[in-house]
Amino acid sequence: MKNLTTYRVIYGDTDQMGVAYYANYLRWFEMGRTELLRQIGLPYSSIEEKGFFFPVIEASCRYLKPARFDDEIAIETTLAALSRVTLEFSYRISRKHDGQLLAEGAPRHACVDREGKVAKISTALENPLKAALTR
Amino acid sequence: MKNLTTYRVIYGDTDQMGVAYYANYLRWFEMGRTELLRQIGLPYSSIEEKGFFFPVIEASCRYLKPARFDDEIAIETTLAALSRVTLEFSYRISRKHDGQLLAEGAPRHACVDREGKVAKISTALENPLKAALTR
Amino acid sequence: MKNLTTYRVIYGDTDQMGVAYYANYLRWFEMGRTELLRQIGLPYSSIEEKGFFFPVIEASCRYLKPARFDDEIAIETTLAALSRVTLEFSYRISRKHDGQLLAEGAPRHACVDREGKVAKISTALENPLKAALTR
Amino acid sequence: MKNLTTYRVIYGDTDQMGVAYYANYLRWFEMGRTELLRQIGLPYSSIEEKGFFFPVIEASCRYLKPARFDDEIAIETTLAALSRVTLEFSYRISRKHDGQLLAEGAPRHACVDREGKVAKISTALENPLKAALTR
Repeated sequence: MKNLTTYRVIYGDTDQMGVAYYANYLRWFEMGRTELLRQIGLPYSSIEEKGFFFPVIEASCRYLKPARFDDEIAIETTLAALSRVTLEFSYRISRKHDGQLLAEGAPRHACVDREGKVAKISTALENPLKAALTR
Repeated sequence: MKNLTTYRVIYGDTDQMGVAYYANYLRWFEMGRTELLRQIGLPYSSIEEKGFFFPVIEASCRYLKPARFDDEIAIETTLAALSRVTLEFSYRISRKHDGQLLAEGAPRHACVDREGKVAKISTALENPLKAALTR
Repeated sequence: MKNLTTYRVIYGDTDQMGVAYYANYLRWFEMGRTELLRQIGLPYSSIEEKGFFFPVIEASCRYLKPARFDDEIAIETTLAALSRVTLEFSYRISRKHDGQLLAEGAPRHACVDREGKVAKISTALENPLKAALTR
Repeated sequence: MKNLTTYRVIYGDTDQMGVAYYANYLRWFEMGRTELLRQIGLPYSSIEEKGFFFPVIEASCRYLKPARFDDEIAIETTLAALSRVTLEFSYRISRKHDGQLLAEGAPRHACVDREGKVAKISTALENPLKAALTR
């Protein structure tokens, strides 16, 4: 199971090199993640309501080609790994008009409770996540 | 009473016009506001601990000259007005090396409680704020 | 003539008050502006290719209700005023699910050339802009 | 040789989890990088004037503890590796008041020319960079 979300790069995303600033790709990863979670019936706000949070514990991104102002980009998100207390999403960002791959990354998240303590992913979360993983 | 805070414009603040993106000035206003509040003995975190928040209800900014990458800017902040439930700060952002005024603005804030309801600014907050205003 | 563009508020747009940070509304204004210009046949990249730029010279925003994480917002953009060397867009940002108005603003732009000098808006730009204005 | 730069986390850096949003650490890495380059006599603007650019080709960050609003953070930057066409900086971000390590990362950059083509790092750049590396 994968999610495809699109976004159009704005002027405020660019820097004086004329390309999207490198930190913005992490924002776009978040967009894909939020939509994948919604798609599997587990919107992130419902996770927070249950008292769980998924802070990022490790982020990585490979930048292959620059995204530019007004480019429509496609964010392809999958759930790549799931342990008792961590999740890893995988992202591929490509330019819509020609399919050129621009960047890819695979941030890892921990599951924590309201106090910020690492917490076992509850069954209510685990089942839809597992379904996303295995299909 | 005024506060002077400095900041150096980073690459991530610029856009492809080669100047700082216009939304970033609002971030710089916040820097000045936080430092002025600290200077008058009322750090913003202590305000939140007392159960008050100062969301912006109106923002304005005049852009006179662009800030550029690596410019050191000076943010001059004063408390311009204070009512029972609102505050207005005044900002002047200038380039440090030649004093050129770059932008000025005067966002207004409401005082709200934890539920987001408008709340009278308590005496514990009002006294240091008044001192900042009148001097 | 007006443009309607939608955007979904991401986690990275929020701050610890649990609402969208005030500077982000200026990014959303930009989204609306870019789409209105595209709609009238004058994509902003074509303006830059002709050697013109529209830096913001004055921005203002009234914040009525907060946008929150995962809110779908509608950005309604019109061209409110046009002089020989300036443009003023008008924006209304509302929450999609109930139509609640969240913010409105009316930044003004100058027309400048590659050297950053104020420049008369050329006929090639003025005609589509006038059409957007008068309807 | 290392550079130590400090920054105070602003409200606009936080998200509704009450901690700094993960993409902001990449902005802070940039602050450290810019200051290290200045310290070795090679300010980034002088690199651009020579016709070279250092876009990031790979970024990674491990998040150990969250940075919070108003935390003063120390950004420690070193040049970790240098090849004919790439550079790798290494960063450690810690909380100033207790020295707690918050995050660390090691983005890699390519050297490119004005056309975005990979370019050999010229001798004028290589000598100060080598000095930063070996000491």
